[in-house]
Amino acid sequence: MRILLSNDDGYFAPGLQALAAALAEVGKIDVVAPERDRSGASNSLTLDRPLSLRKAASGFHYVNGTPTDCVHLAVTGMLDELPDMVVSGINHGANMGDDTIYSGTVAAATEGFLLGVPAIAISLVAKGASDFSAAGRIARELVERFQRDPVRQPTLLNVNVPDLPYDQIKGIQVTRLGKRHKAEPTIKSLTPRNETVYWVGAAGSAQDAGEGTDFHAVANGYVSVTPLQIDLTHYGQVAGIRDWLGK
Amino acid sequence: MRILLSNDDGYFAPGLQALAAALAEVGKIDVVAPERDRSGASNSLTLDRPLSLRKAASGFHYVNGTPTDCVHLAVTGMLDELPDMVVSGINHGANMGDDTIYSGTVAAATEGFLLGVPAIAISLVAKGASDFSAAGRIARELVERFQRDPVRQPTLLNVNVPDLPYDQIKGIQVTRLGKRHKAEPTIKSLTPRNETVYWVGAAGSAQDAGEGTDFHAVANGYVSVTPLQIDLTHYGQVAGIRDWLGK
Amino acid sequence: MRILLSNDDGYFAPGLQALAAALAEVGKIDVVAPERDRSGASNSLTLDRPLSLRKAASGFHYVNGTPTDCVHLAVTGMLDELPDMVVSGINHGANMGDDTIYSGTVAAATEGFLLGVPAIAISLVAKGASDFSAAGRIARELVERFQRDPVRQPTLLNVNVPDLPYDQIKGIQVTRLGKRHKAEPTIKSLTPRNETVYWVGAAGSAQDAGEGTDFHAVANGYVSVTPLQIDLTHYGQVAGIRDWLGK
Amino acid sequence: MRILLSNDDGYFAPGLQALAAALAEVGKIDVVAPERDRSGASNSLTLDRPLSLRKAASGFHYVNGTPTDCVHLAVTGMLDELPDMVVSGINHGANMGDDTIYSGTVAAATEGFLLGVPAIAISLVAKGASDFSAAGRIARELVERFQRDPVRQPTLLNVNVPDLPYDQIKGIQVTRLGKRHKAEPTIKSLTPRNETVYWVGAAGSAQDAGEGTDFHAVANGYVSVTPLQIDLTHYGQVAGIRDWLGK
Repeated sequence: MRILLSNDDGYFAPGLQALAAALAEVGKIDVVAPERDRSGASNSLTLDRPLSLRKAASGFHYVNGTPTDCVHLAVTGMLDELPDMVVSGINHGANMGDDTIYSGTVAAATEGFLLGVPAIAISLVAKGASDFSAAGRIARELVERFQRDPVRQPTLLNVNVPDLPYDQIKGIQVTRLGKRHKAEPTIKSLTPRNETVYWVGAAGSAQDAGEGTDFHAVANGYVSVTPLQIDLTHYGQVAGIRDWLGK
Repeated sequence: MRILLSNDDGYFAPGLQALAAALAEVGKIDVVAPERDRSGASNSLTLDRPLSLRKAASGFHYVNGTPTDCVHLAVTGMLDELPDMVVSGINHGANMGDDTIYSGTVAAATEGFLLGVPAIAISLVAKGASDFSAAGRIARELVERFQRDPVRQPTLLNVNVPDLPYDQIKGIQVTRLGKRHKAEPTIKSLTPRNETVYWVGAAGSAQDAGEGTDFHAVANGYVSVTPLQIDLTHYGQVAGIRDWLGK
Repeated sequence: MRILLSNDDGYFAPGLQALAAALAEVGKIDVVAPERDRSGASNSLTLDRPLSLRKAASGFHYVNGTPTDCVHLAVTGMLDELPDMVVSGINHGANMGDDTIYSGTVAAATEGFLLGVPAIAISLVAKGASDFSAAGRIARELVERFQRDPVRQPTLLNVNVPDLPYDQIKGIQVTRLGKRHKAEPTIKSLTPRNETVYWVGAAGSAQDAGEGTDFHAVANGYVSVTPLQIDLTHYGQVAGIRDWLGK
Repeated sequence: MRILLSNDDGYFAPGLQALAAALAEVGKIDVVAPERDRSGASNSLTLDRPLSLRKAASGFHYVNGTPTDCVHLAVTGMLDELPDMVVSGINHGANMGDDTIYSGTVAAATEGFLLGVPAIAISLVAKGASDFSAAGRIARELVERFQRDPVRQPTLLNVNVPDLPYDQIKGIQVTRLGKRHKAEPTIKSLTPRNETVYWVGAAGSAQDAGEGTDFHAVANGYVSVTPLQIDLTHYGQVAGIRDWLGK
């Protein structure tokens, strides 16, 4: 089994190292990750300049681009054959609810999925210094399950792991993405040169965090696994908008 | 009516000027757009540095950030009250099918939608030098329709306009997003300093461009209007993945 | 006479517009400037990606690179023949003393000089909203003087203009660069995500601002003109270092 | 002895590791280097956003900024006391002649010098895969010499080492900077999206590479040591320009 790894925290990130260590036991791994922290990169793709691909002493490759660039370049330009899976992470911090659309971790997995490869994004729901070993073990278990029993349909899974020791995690729940309240306002500040600048504010608190959501699963000590799709069409509104335009 | 305008081609782009000219007749407009071309930025949000907000001679504001940053900052930090609509564009080039997830034009509208404001992304399906007047007129008609008859539900519309004079456009079709074949391989090239670099390849050709898709509508001389949503949950797979994990 | 104009504040900056307006009366001008504010860019040259060159509605060209890139690309790739002069500015803010080595305004002129073209960097010593007309007039007078009476040697002039109406400026003084005290310490601050970040502190106060320096001239109402060279060799230390190494 | 190390190739560069290994034997070292390759950065200083400072597993610190930012932040914001020396490198490639003004390696040393610390920039004149051990040994010898016998004057040394085994290096020569012919023209190329882009061309061949220059020393198997200064004033032209302006 050949597994392509990426992330959005950069090729040197401890979460990626933990992931590589865990998956090296399952198959042949290739790591292609951004040369610097690209958290918040979403599906951003670099079109106005070429990318370079370099290899670090660790054997990991790094690219001067986004998570999406990394997977795109690995699959369509570097690897001799299509990998069997793409796994992105382990992100340092949650990727749940609406925030998923901003996530570079999820974007790297999404790019694999778009290129025809089953993909998993995995994040550890932690803020401070963290132990990635439980999340690494869960990544390995999911990949092994794929290996034994491939899912028949194109698959893109968004996995969030609570910050607990492995034996305190209660299990896995298949979830939907929750929803947040609106983001906090931007924060105005002054530079030492007296220019006004604005920091993007914190994410809003959870609005839909009820049973069945990723927020709820993780808050209760479960790993959340949310199957994702990338067709943004709002089928439920097609008829209504047609009526509205026809008036 | 107060309308917030943005785009991903930059605050100086002719498509944005055409949009501003068209919508100034309908309401009070504020323009907040990236200081440089950020095509392909997707929903990328800048978290590792603060943003600056400046005003050009044209009265347009520009931000050293992404399209998402622009709308985020405008709505949560600059404007005194929530705008009535966000309109993003007129993009120079199509935003149809799977490519929509990479689009900064759609991302700017999406950010408005996430912040509770009805939003439209509008793109002109053209490659070379272009006339944005028909697309500007269509933007104005859609906004006027909202003004007269607000849609009851949260609304995010992705509009693509064929590159035709206004009176040769056959009408509007409400569509779903089509699908493309995989992207072309990356293109290897050598720098003058003999380093290998890689350009992201061209988008794939259309795979699902049948009736009902945005590709089909535009190819037949219609404006496509695709209602979008941002919940990436693949509800159709929740049960199946639950079974798979339970085995 | 053909004059190439650039700056580091970006192609849309009022100081560049004032310069272009003033010099259009003297010769044929071409403007090639950065697409965004690149203050502090020094002689930075972009080697890891190619540059794009675009033309704004104003007729000015802009480049997604540094001031040095702009002049380099204009002279070695865009213009059919070598320009007769390169003029960079009008910078919004002083470029005097040690700070000159950080200046993108001076760097653009330096690149012209390195490519064999007489060059002037011109800066207005002002902080807030500013009137560039006096500085524009001085730029024109200097260029006209070159036109009438070319300097025989390769020439690179660093010009700083006090923020005064033209008729209150007392004259021109040929100066040496002054020196500053060390910069103020960096300023620590916290992001909304509780990460510590550091702003580069303010420039130090003047240490050598005595008679004969640019600081002194401008403080007394004169335009300072400092001839520059770019050979960084410390000839006065060659023998001493040789002794030291020989011990 | 406390030594601050930096470079422009990035904190992970083999040349920096070799330098750190060599100097760890002489004193207490702190490494603060750019998070990514910033070759060609010159004295560029980041003023429009704050910098972050992080620590890698290797114990090296990295900054999301330029070489100048790294030394500036280390000296004015991170270290408790002024270091005794700043050493920048070992750069992968020459920094000789006029090119010195573009060099980020030299800029890092220059920033130390400007902040009152004796500084050395050291570069290996090699293109392909390289052995930094001889250059590391030379760096150590120079620093040890400083330790034994401090130079009385403020000192900034630009050191270039030929790509030879240590015992084949013929010695050290104190040199002046040579000069190059003009750079090669920019190289036009087409992107996969049919946009014209321009690569900055190769550096020109040596024009002044005669005896006494850094070019000459290295070509003949010697280490070149060029003492630098940062006062760009062209004292030799002050009187001439005064005459010219007085006419």
